[in-house]
Amino acid sequence: MIAGPIRNLIREFRKLPGIGEKTAMRLALHVLGTPTERAEALAHALVEVKRRIRPCGECYQMTEQEICGVCSSHRRDRSIICVVEDQAGLMAIENTRTYFGLYHVLGGKLSPVDAVGPDDLTVGRLVARVKGGEVKEVILATNPDVEGEATALYVKRELVPLGVEVTRIARGVPIGGELEYADALTLGRAFEGRGEF
Amino acid sequence: MIAGPIRNLIREFRKLPGIGEKTAMRLALHVLGTPTERAEALAHALVEVKRRIRPCGECYQMTEQEICGVCSSHRRDRSIICVVEDQAGLMAIENTRTYFGLYHVLGGKLSPVDAVGPDDLTVGRLVARVKGGEVKEVILATNPDVEGEATALYVKRELVPLGVEVTRIARGVPIGGELEYADALTLGRAFEGRGEF
Repeated sequence: MIAGPIRNLIREFRKLPGIGEKTAMRLALHVLGTPTERAEALAHALVEVKRRIRPCGECYQMTEQEICGVCSSHRRDRSIICVVEDQAGLMAIENTRTYFGLYHVLGGKLSPVDAVGPDDLTVGRLVARVKGGEVKEVILATNPDVEGEATALYVKRELVPLGVEVTRIARGVPIGGELEYADALTLGRAFEGRGEF
Repeated sequence: MIAGPIRNLIREFRKLPGIGEKTAMRLALHVLGTPTERAEALAHALVEVKRRIRPCGECYQMTEQEICGVCSSHRRDRSIICVVEDQAGLMAIENTRTYFGLYHVLGGKLSPVDAVGPDDLTVGRLVARVKGGEVKEVILATNPDVEGEATALYVKRELVPLGVEVTRIARGVPIGGELEYADALTLGRAFEGRGEF
């Protein structure tokens, strides 16, 4: 007894990650009550992002251009490459506004369970970029979980023979957290990775 | 340094209720990684819902037709009208699959703070429907908050002179809940509204 287009919109919202039945309904009803231009703006943004975005030919971050804004910028430090698993990691780092080198998006992480091996990642292209000559340091910023660490290790082994400096982002207790709530692994890693103060 | 279409999609997602910066980014990145057809299906659903849905000429629920599926159904009990504030309330009741009468959507609730008065609601149309003759009972299912109660009272006063039976959905402790977690107002109302057992 609920109109087809409403049920359909709820169904489409539900396909998004983290959106359950109630949230999908709330979103659909919000769209119903919103001006048409607003709904069309979201619809247009959805179509445009699929139509105009593709991986950068150099670093594989998502971009509108052949070569992304970071890779083509004259204001970025071309002697450092930060290696991330995916666009989400890249955007999180870019949001810090403290990193001004280049990026390299691996396109995932090594995961035997999901049958993701080295050939599924863009490690070969990273090696080629480093061989290119300008790069002095590669910062491994894969996620601090088991697969992320394994992936970082693998990438390191591929790069070390090239004579480039390979570093890993610090893993430790998060700023603003309390020690009593930190898990044992993180706290252990914070001790291992302690530095001069 | 993040591509315009991605930033734009994040911005549009953020305009949805309950979607913050991080969720908007997660949704946008999900769309980036999803097949084009999936993104287009959501875009299409958004546009269609605005293009094809309008209020029913009878009860004001959102519908594709001139008169909605409930109002035009021969299997609904035309002697009962359930009055709700909005489409969300209607859908919540319809989802219970226990109510088989008609509906009337008020289009809001009385709220002096938001300058919503009786003329902003569809009460006049409800009165006209009841005067039409077939209706024996009107169930007031406005939300159980202050404005919802005030709105129910107002609607009741408009209907009583017409000789129709006016009822209000029961307010009490929710099924599956525990008394110790029920707030005092709800528990008090559950005592007032107690029934034979």
